Amino acid sequence: MFLPPTGEEIVCSVVGCERQMGVTDDWVFVLSFEIVARANDSRARAGVLHTKDGDVQTPVFMPVGTLGAVKTLSPADLDEAGAQIVLGNTYHLHIRPGEDVVAHFGGLSRFAAWNKPTLTDSGGFQVFSLAENRKITEEGVTFRSHLDGASLFLSPEKSIEIQTKLGSSVMMCLDECVSNPSEYEYVEKSLALTTRWALRCKQYKEQVNSKQLLFGIVQGGVEHDLRQRSAGELAEIGFDGYAIGGLSVGEPNEVMYEVVDRVMGHIPTDKAHYLMGVGTPTDIITAIELGVDMFDCVMPTRNARHGRLFTSTGALDIKLEEHKMSGEPIDKGCNCYTCRNFTRGYLRHLFKSGEMLAFRLNSIHNITYYLSLVRGAREAIINGTFRGYKNLFH
Amino acid sequence: MFLPPTGEEIVCSVVGCERQMGVTDDWVFVLSFEIVARANDSRARAGVLHTKDGDVQTPVFMPVGTLGAVKTLSPADLDEAGAQIVLGNTYHLHIRPGEDVVAHFGGLSRFAAWNKPTLTDSGGFQVFSLAENRKITEEGVTFRSHLDGASLFLSPEKSIEIQTKLGSSVMMCLDECVSNPSEYEYVEKSLALTTRWALRCKQYKEQVNSKQLLFGIVQGGVEHDLRQRSAGELAEIGFDGYAIGGLSVGEPNEVMYEVVDRVMGHIPTDKAHYLMGVGTPTDIITAIELGVDMFDCVMPTRNARHGRLFTSTGALDIKLEEHKMSGEPIDKGCNCYTCRNFTRGYLRHLFKSGEMLAFRLNSIHNITYYLSLVRGAREAIINGTFRGYKNLFH
Repeated sequence: MFLPPTGEEIVCSVVGCERQMGVTDDWVFVLSFEIVARANDSRARAGVLHTKDGDVQTPVFMPVGTLGAVKTLSPADLDEAGAQIVLGNTYHLHIRPGEDVVAHFGGLSRFAAWNKPTLTDSGGFQVFSLAENRKITEEGVTFRSHLDGASLFLSPEKSIEIQTKLGSSVMMCLDECVSNPSEYEYVEKSLALTTRWALRCKQYKEQVNSKQLLFGIVQGGVEHDLRQRSAGELAEIGFDGYAIGGLSVGEPNEVMYEVVDRVMGHIPTDKAHYLMGVGTPTDIITAIELGVDMFDCVMPTRNARHGRLFTSTGALDIKLEEHKMSGEPIDKGCNCYTCRNFTRGYLRHLFKSGEMLAFRLNSIHNITYYLSLVRGAREAIINGTFRGYKNLFH
Repeated sequence: MFLPPTGEEIVCSVVGCERQMGVTDDWVFVLSFEIVARANDSRARAGVLHTKDGDVQTPVFMPVGTLGAVKTLSPADLDEAGAQIVLGNTYHLHIRPGEDVVAHFGGLSRFAAWNKPTLTDSGGFQVFSLAENRKITEEGVTFRSHLDGASLFLSPEKSIEIQTKLGSSVMMCLDECVSNPSEYEYVEKSLALTTRWALRCKQYKEQVNSKQLLFGIVQGGVEHDLRQRSAGELAEIGFDGYAIGGLSVGEPNEVMYEVVDRVMGHIPTDKAHYLMGVGTPTDIITAIELGVDMFDCVMPTRNARHGRLFTSTGALDIKLEEHKMSGEPIDKGCNCYTCRNFTRGYLRHLFKSGEMLAFRLNSIHNITYYLSLVRGAREAIINGTFRGYKNLFH
């Protein structure tokens, strides 16, 4: 986030953007998100998210660094792959090493020697998927650590307090993640709680005067009227960006796309849109067309550790016998460290032998694939060729 | 190995070396090893090993890449750490992926995208330490794979055949590794067999006309007369280099040094000397003083994977609570990727969390430490300051 001298008028420095920033006497109001190009036949857009730790060009894919490291990859690997922003999991970092340790080192980005923007989730998703003996009240949620069974408590205020100590560029509001399928009545009650929690998150953030961005999370299951209600209530509170949570949890793809499409009509278009935990390359390209700007997913790294690799001509399983004698790279069109240097035959051997190097080389490739995919989408939007780009993935 | 036009006279291109190469009408006899500097108060020497895949400056430490990869490290990591030559284990590579696969890819160095010199052991050590149902005859040794129990057979000829397919720069003769302690009579019988096998290795190598170097291995347990006999018999056969095997298997350090010291008096001084599987930094510096040129050991990488790190001020255990809040690098004097970028606090967190990145960052540091240690010894020998250098490690 750039902070010009008080009282001076500034315009956005992004090429192609002529938007003017507002100025007040004692506080510069900098827009957190700017749109620099729009597709003319869909809601796809290219933008820039301004954070205290630097700018992020959108659409963007955020590799998942649960514990402050993207599994098997170093910051140099992520840099070379073109990563701009990495996600950290608040639940995991709270348990290990604890937010006070991270704060001692100057926040997550410096702790991990990443030195670029980060986004932290609220911890809510893991509380609802990993933790045990969960009990929800208006105040927050008590649960037991999946690691050592310790009793823990997370409230909207506590989540923001932890995320403030983690010092991420973007924080997320604590939400209740309902399982799918759930009864309409339960989803309705839940999203009302999520709205009240979101308001408390915003109030706490303002109270501690954090420069971190804060995103709200739209819930409401697969019920369109509830999604609309959630989106409207969050928009009324006002956030730096809006996420869609509770999708990619087992519902059919078409249902997910439909929910995303409807929600997009009810959240502010001039803010960043983040579809949490999604998904396959096709999911991501489809969601970009629907107006989503930000993505995270463990799929590229997790698949890599299972030998499943993404290529421009489809997925491949490096374990298969057919690769044993192959002198080809994973993907001839890929310029990652792995594809520049290693054959499928060698990568298969490493994987079959359980060598850790296999997991890293595979992860480098898959992360590069995802980042290139989304960077390509941005370029296509700017060049007015997104429709053609999207059709390559169907 | 450089091959000038037939009939032309050449001198060594190594700076400081004025040694002349021999020339015959139809075959250039290139010295496999040249000594470029000697300490004037010990047997320490700096040299160059010429191999078909390039030169190796000695003394040299060879990281162990059992299955065609130094555990957790990429070729780029090894390059940056200053590795010149990597060791591959014939036993492991024979079982997985098999020497025919490696040969298909142009040999171990190209298969692993290392593209620099490699050394393969004979497979003998693993047959005697890992394999089951072992049975030794004059012809060779039958055993069962530690992986799937398959019945396998290794003879001197078979070992060289496999190593020829692996295409290493330096091959090792098949030897019998006796356990320590063993009866004198058994050690005596065993070394006689090792000598007969060594002769068969050399004959087979000449028969297949391999350009790979071949080293003999001195055995004889801790019996000085048997070591002397073994050294003398191997010297009579004549090899490109001489290794000392069967040490660092539980005997006291002083006994090991004594054996090395005595053996050095009985192997050709103008050939490369390789102390197999040794050892700690102190072991290595001590052996360099005794006249050893080449080393390999799993200690730096194995210790790294257990969180034990080498530093200029002693070893440290990164798991300890005392590192939790430390903003220091592992070693202030170290310029490796890990020390340039990461704090002890972060490395401890990664290790305690079981992140694979921890194993790699630790391995980068420990391998850099070992390679720097031995490179420093070489420089000190050339500068005439080896005695002072050695004293830093006591």
